[in-house]
Amino acid sequence: MPLNLTPDQIRGRIDHAILKPEFTRSEVDEQLELAARYRLLSVCVRPSDVSYATERLAGEVMVGTVIGFPHGTTSTVAKVAEVEQALADGASELDMVLNIGWLRSGLDDLVSADIAAVVEASAGRVVKVIFETSLLNEDDIVRACRASESAGAQFVKTSTGFAGGGATVEHIALMRANVGPAVSVKASGGVRSLDALLALADAGASRFGTSASAAILDEAEARAAGAAPSAASDDNSY
Amino acid sequence: MPLNLTPDQIRGRIDHAILKPEFTRSEVDEQLELAARYRLLSVCVRPSDVSYATERLAGEVMVGTVIGFPHGTTSTVAKVAEVEQALADGASELDMVLNIGWLRSGLDDLVSADIAAVVEASAGRVVKVIFETSLLNEDDIVRACRASESAGAQFVKTSTGFAGGGATVEHIALMRANVGPAVSVKASGGVRSLDALLALADAGASRFGTSASAAILDEAEARAAGAAPSAASDDNSY
Repeated sequence: MPLNLTPDQIRGRIDHAILKPEFTRSEVDEQLELAARYRLLSVCVRPSDVSYATERLAGEVMVGTVIGFPHGTTSTVAKVAEVEQALADGASELDMVLNIGWLRSGLDDLVSADIAAVVEASAGRVVKVIFETSLLNEDDIVRACRASESAGAQFVKTSTGFAGGGATVEHIALMRANVGPAVSVKASGGVRSLDALLALADAGASRFGTSASAAILDEAEARAAGAAPSAASDDNSY
Repeated sequence: MPLNLTPDQIRGRIDHAILKPEFTRSEVDEQLELAARYRLLSVCVRPSDVSYATERLAGEVMVGTVIGFPHGTTSTVAKVAEVEQALADGASELDMVLNIGWLRSGLDDLVSADIAAVVEASAGRVVKVIFETSLLNEDDIVRACRASESAGAQFVKTSTGFAGGGATVEHIALMRANVGPAVSVKASGGVRSLDALLALADAGASRFGTSASAAILDEAEARAAGAAPSAASDDNSY
């Protein structure tokens, strides 16, 4: 792929995922340090890490978190309480999982009301709606785009990273085509290389969720400098 | 394995898992009907299905749900709000996931306080603490037993069914040995056959979470009757 984004544009579009349930405090620390060192836009941490990450990063890197993650099938009340605590703890962005079962049942009004409750509780913060596209068909994805936009979300997002599958060029293009200009598309799940990121950007994604940020940026820097990509990287793979 | 439990004892120890995030209403309906037909002790449904399941089952089968599922790393406040909504919706039992990251970081007091908050909110309902044993070592499991018991939980439970791995005879024996007589052990994750269930029972489990309830009970009935196990079963495999 041609390098259509500069390394600084790439780092400014990455939400660095620190979401594995088994991560210890010291593993979280390593990832927070990596995000600061690479000057990434944000980290996306587990809800119980928001206050810790906010304090450690001290404004250097934005802190986001996940809501109803990763299944999306909790009660709306629980999602709202999770948002309120996340905001109190310092979260700036909220990546919520929509109710996948309701969506696949055609209960679009319930899906939209669930998202709208999170948007309202978020008090103006950026809300991204995770679809888990690997569990959906094209019609589900189109309806999820409509439900998200009508509920006032700022982003639609492909995947949690925990259900297999992940962002594909086809799904990003489908999502981009089915939301208006005020809604952005975030690619996540399996974004493991610079070329994958560039292809997803080309299809319409303007934000990327990945835990391979170091490998991606090392490669972007090397390619921008005209050198071969570096083999060294600091990466928690999944 | 010798059939040390009668079919009725087995059905009285099964929490039938209906937890896949992608299940539609009609897939949930099928599973609720199966649980009623097999007279299982309970169903374990997604939080957003509790009121629906309670209404459909009308007291025939107990309804339980999951809290902080499946990662366990949400905020305590969100877990408590999830419990309160689940109780309002009719849940009788609550299977919560402990904070796996805190446990693996040695933050046992935080783990215990998180569980205690759920126990308190549960207002006397049965609380089961899911460890996700496949992500833990033996020391983690022993400390999780202590944290759960000191927080007032009635059950310790191996797995969510969504992290790979599942209940092993070794882990059930370890958990049974590290909680007192007032705490029971639930085996879940990969409980897919009668022989697996009987081996786990033998190791100390007195409750079983499975989606293979039909296959297990068909086989138990056949074996109790001295016949060959039936190949027919009604089963949502995972």
